[in-house]
Order: sequence, then structure tokens, then C-alpha cells
Amino acid sequence: MGLGTAGIGGVKRIWWISLWLLTIYFTYLYSSGYPKEGKMGTSFINRDIMMVKNSQEYQYNSVDQKPTLVKNDQDMPLIFIGGMPRSGTTLMRTMLDAHPDVRCGQETRVIPRLLFMRNNWIRSVKERRRLEEAGILPKVLDQAVSQFILEIIINHGSAAKFLCNKDPFTLKATTYLHELFPNAKFILMLRDGRATAHSIISRKVTIAGFDITSYRDVLTKWNRALEVIHNQCNEVGSKYCLSVHYETLVLRPVQETKRIFTFLDIPWSDHVLHHEKYLPDIQLSKLEKSTDQVQRPLYLDALTSWFGHIPEDVERDMAKIAPMLTKLGYDPSIQRPSYGEPDEFIKSQMSSRNSTQQSS
Amino acid sequence: MGLGTAGIGGVKRIWWISLWLLTIYFTYLYSSGYPKEGKMGTSFINRDIMMVKNSQEYQYNSVDQKPTLVKNDQDMPLIFIGGMPRSGTTLMRTMLDAHPDVRCGQETRVIPRLLFMRNNWIRSVKERRRLEEAGILPKVLDQAVSQFILEIIINHGSAAKFLCNKDPFTLKATTYLHELFPNAKFILMLRDGRATAHSIISRKVTIAGFDITSYRDVLTKWNRALEVIHNQCNEVGSKYCLSVHYETLVLRPVQETKRIFTFLDIPWSDHVLHHEKYLPDIQLSKLEKSTDQVQRPLYLDALTSWFGHIPEDVERDMAKIAPMLTKLGYDPSIQRPSYGEPDEFIKSQMSSRNSTQQSS
Repeated sequence: MGLGTAGIGGVKRIWWISLWLLTIYFTYLYSSGYPKEGKMGTSFINRDIMMVKNSQEYQYNSVDQKPTLVKNDQDMPLIFIGGMPRSGTTLMRTMLDAHPDVRCGQETRVIPRLLFMRNNWIRSVKERRRLEEAGILPKVLDQAVSQFILEIIINHGSAAKFLCNKDPFTLKATTYLHELFPNAKFILMLRDGRATAHSIISRKVTIAGFDITSYRDVLTKWNRALEVIHNQCNEVGSKYCLSVHYETLVLRPVQETKRIFTFLDIPWSDHVLHHEKYLPDIQLSKLEKSTDQVQRPLYLDALTSWFGHIPEDVERDMAKIAPMLTKLGYDPSIQRPSYGEPDEFIKSQMSSRNSTQQSS
Repeated sequence: MGLGTAGIGGVKRIWWISLWLLTIYFTYLYSSGYPKEGKMGTSFINRDIMMVKNSQEYQYNSVDQKPTLVKNDQDMPLIFIGGMPRSGTTLMRTMLDAHPDVRCGQETRVIPRLLFMRNNWIRSVKERRRLEEAGILPKVLDQAVSQFILEIIINHGSAAKFLCNKDPFTLKATTYLHELFPNAKFILMLRDGRATAHSIISRKVTIAGFDITSYRDVLTKWNRALEVIHNQCNEVGSKYCLSVHYETLVLRPVQETKRIFTFLDIPWSDHVLHHEKYLPDIQLSKLEKSTDQVQRPLYLDALTSWFGHIPEDVERDMAKIAPMLTKLGYDPSIQRPSYGEPDEFIKSQMSSRNSTQQSS
């Protein structure tokens, strides 16, 4: 093009060449750093998640929230909440949902079923051999299971800095989920099994394998399920799994939620103490049994509502039926236990509610 | 930077500015068109699939094989082979596996189970409502199911231009798979149900729900399953689903495989006529019942091996027990049917095998 013969002086030529090189550098940086939506398709896998929340645009990728590309979405800092049904799992997730940076949402129902199905496959030696002969090695299956779980968690609700899942029985697979998602954290909800049993029976909450007309059967099954979940939680260790007692959460929510958010490594927000105020933004299912309960502010009635409902013969055998009670710090021989004093926040809420009721 | 005062003449300045703009354009094109491996992570989702096969590097993306980025892996031109077990599905997939550009591999076992599970969820009105209340809308579930299937198909075997899956009963979900993967093609294997029944019973192939001691029961269930699969195949239409008779495939393989590859829009290769020669490269499961059979060259013994094995009372009621026989072109009243003459290729194979046997 004859540019070499342009005859510009040496200094000027260096200026132009520098400008040219800089242009290449910045154009390259710009276009490789900002992949366009259309080109990346509709899946969330292996692209940075561009999400709009509160009219702000975020790029969320990792715990340190730097807007860099994640190597693999399995590195996402997911939060899994679980435990026995009727143990405050819905309350816990609704409190987290009230936090501006967290989204849990409704029970997905399909995630625990896939985990259960996968568990059945690998439990049978015969089936495991068949899968391996078919090229379905553990890492192949794990990759498929984790993509299924991620798609469900990401797409069944709105975007948020931290995504969370609450399906009570997923925590039966805590160690497996920890393998799939090494940065995930687990919150195990614990509650006095007698209160849980009373709630299951009085609210007719059907659970596969539970005879919900019998306190003895429900407490036996509660014990068995809790044993599995509790062991799994211990196995991944306290860095990844935190036990939260329902009773403590409703009696001393300020201290307890701060402890939870420290564990999650997310700045605490007082929104979590007033989940009922953020209900329009919190997705609830009309068909979940706890939905009416979490629409109220924190309350203490459920702590004692089971008193006097356990049949005498079951009370008598309690320590044998449900040894996990003792293990989790509940005394099976005390039939009307006290779970401790409410904190100042709850006391002031209660007194303001009382005065409202008196004045109305 | 004082560049504006460089004092270059007008024409020269236009040269430089043009060069500068072209640099921006080409650098931009280059860096946005070729995303780097490391940045895109380990998943196959939403990146072009870089695969090494026969020491050559390919970028496979779409039917026209242009090395461009796919918008979504659900657009992949997958091949699904299915039908009733013992109808030549393994032979069909092994013949495709012998083609240098196709990989099917072993039965994955988990894909039909996930499809079955998903079908159960959406079949119940109550469960469907619960899922929708939970934010698990059909498109959310479909996205998760398709990513699971893709991860399994892609990762359970080696790379190839065209990936294929053979799990006999996946074709019960042909219309759903067609929704998930609009460019997928389906090969439905059909075979005389009496031969299939004899094979199931004599080789003790357990199938859930089948009483494999009774010809009447197996033929009844064969009829029921085939009806579903055949209807599904008709529903997606002949552009996407091709029926292949096992008898035709083994008697006239040249013409039939050419018809199949025309349907698949893949250039035919004579490798498919000699699958037994490519066995070291074809993955077989030691635990699949057909593995010993597909290690032999094409043979005709299986066409007639059922003659004389069907109980008389079942023979008598055949048209009523299995009306699909007539629908698929098999005459239930003829007890020793002829399926036609072998083609020249098969005839020459048979005569060369006979002479080898005589000389050895």
C-alpha cells in the first residue's frame, strides 16, 4: 500500500506504531472480555451469569464477586437448606430469601428425586458394573447430575448474587452434593422431633414411608432420617455444614441469623428478621404446607403446640424410639421442655403486637 | 498526545486512519470469533466441540459442519436408535458405529429412566400444578432434562462428527425428544414380533413388566409397546423418524444402509457393511445381551430361528394378540414366513463363508 514509503520522521512513526499496537490490544481485550448474549445461547452453563435485579446489572461468579468468568459453574457458592420436613426449613429459606443478595425459592421437588434415583443406581453393585461397562463412569454421571441440578436451581426463580435450594431431603445426599459443588454450603435444620411429629400428624403432611396416623411410627422414621442427614452433615464438616435449631432461630433470631451469615460468608442484613415485609418479592408455592405460616412475622406458638399430644406409651418409650433427641440436645424425659428465653428483638416484637391487639 | 499536530498531509492521514479502523475491525473479529479453550471451562455446553479423532482436529457444530459456534447444543444433529429390545437395535447402532463419522456406543441405561421419570411427573395433573407453583415450568424442566441427556451422550464415549444414542425404549419419548432436540433424527427398528418374543424368551432377556416365560404375555406387551413407539414415530413424521425392518437390514444391507444414510444426511460408507472389522474401535458392553451377536458378520440365522417355537394356542390367536404384526407388514397367519431374498453382497458373503468352512 506504499505506507512504508510515506516518509514520516522516526519519532512520529513510533507514535503511530504505538497507537496501532495499543488499538489492537484494547480492541482484543474489549471483544474477548464481553461475550455477547446472542452468541452464548440460552444456557447458563459455563458463561458468566448476567442477571438483572433491583434494576441493577450484576455479573456474579464466585464468592469474591469479581466479575470474572467462572471456570465451571460447579464452583458456584450454592446454599442447600434441608432437614426433616416440618422443622423450619421453609422459615429458614424465607429468611434467606428476604436478604437482598440471596434467592432460594420454592421446593423444586425434582432435585431430591434425581438424587434418590442416582443413589439407587450406584448402590447396586450389579447396576454400577453395567453403567461402567456402558461408559457411564462416575464422573460422567456426576457431570450430568450436576448440570441438571444447576439448570433447575438457576432457572426456577429470579437471579441473585447467591442461589440457594431448599428441598428438605436433599441433605440426605450432603456428601455427594459437596463432591459435585465443592463451594456449596449446607444448612441443616434441627427441631425437637416431638414437635415435628405433632406437626406432620396434625397438618397431615404425607411423607413416603411414614404412617402419619402414628406418633410412634413418625418418631421412629424421624429418628432414622435424622441420623442419616446428621451423619452426612458431620462428614463434610463445620466449614460446609451448619446445624441450626428451629427453636433457637425463632427465640434468638438476631444472634442466630448473624451466626448463619458468618458461616455463609455473606454480609448480614436486618431484612432477614422481617421476612414478612418482603413477601411480594419472595416466591411461595400455594401448594406447600408451610406457606401460610411463613407469611406471619416470627412467632413462638409452634414451640409448645405439641405439648400434651404425644400418646402416653410413646412418651414412655421416647428415649428408645428416638435416641437422636438426646443426641441433638433435647431431653426425651421432659414432657414440657423450655427452649430458652426470647431475645430483646422478639420481646419487643411480642409486646408491640400485644399493644396493637389491645388497642384494636 | 499531540498527534493531531503531526502535520501529515491529508491523503496520508486518511491512509493511517483507514489502517487504524481496519485493525480495530480485524482484531475484534479475531478475538470474538475464537474463544479460548481454558476460558470456556470443561463442559461441552455452549461451546464449539473440539475433538480429536484419527489424529485430526475437528470442530463439529452443525449439520453443515462449518466451524462456527452453535447457538445451543440442543441444535446438535443427534441420532436416536430405538424400538423393542431384541429387534436389531444393537446391530443397527454397531453398523452406524462402524462409520468413521458416527459414534453411538453402549446403552446408557440412565437416559430412558430420566425420560420415564419426567413423564411420570408431567402425567399427573396434581404434580404438574405443584411443579408449576414451584417455578418448575415446562421449559425449565426441559432445559434440565436436555442438559442431562447431552452430558451423558457426549461424555460416555469418544468424540465423533455425529453423536448417536441407542437405548431401545427412549423412542417411547420420540415426540418429546424431538421437542428437546429439533435437529435429531430417529431410527425405529422393527422386527417380526414372533421372532422378538422368541429371542426374549430363549435368551432370558428381562424387561420390566414382561412375563418372559409366556409367549402370549410377551407378544401382548410387544404389541402394546410397539403401538406407542410407532405412533410417536409417525407423529414426528418421516423427515425425522425412519422405520427400519431388521429383516430388510440383514437381507439387503447395501440398499437399506444407503437409504438410512440418505435419511440421516450423512455420506454413506461401506464400513457399515463390515462392522465386525471395526470392532476394536466400537465400544461394546460385556453385560449387554447382544454383544456376542454383533461380533459376527451379518448373518441370517436369526430370521427363522423362532419357527416352530410358538405354542399352538398363541399361534391361533396371533392376529388378536398382536395386531401390530399386520400393521407392520407381517402376516400373523403364516407360520413360516419368507422375508425375501438376500442381496448380492450377502450372497457373496455367504458363499465365501461356506467355502472357507469347507476348506478348513
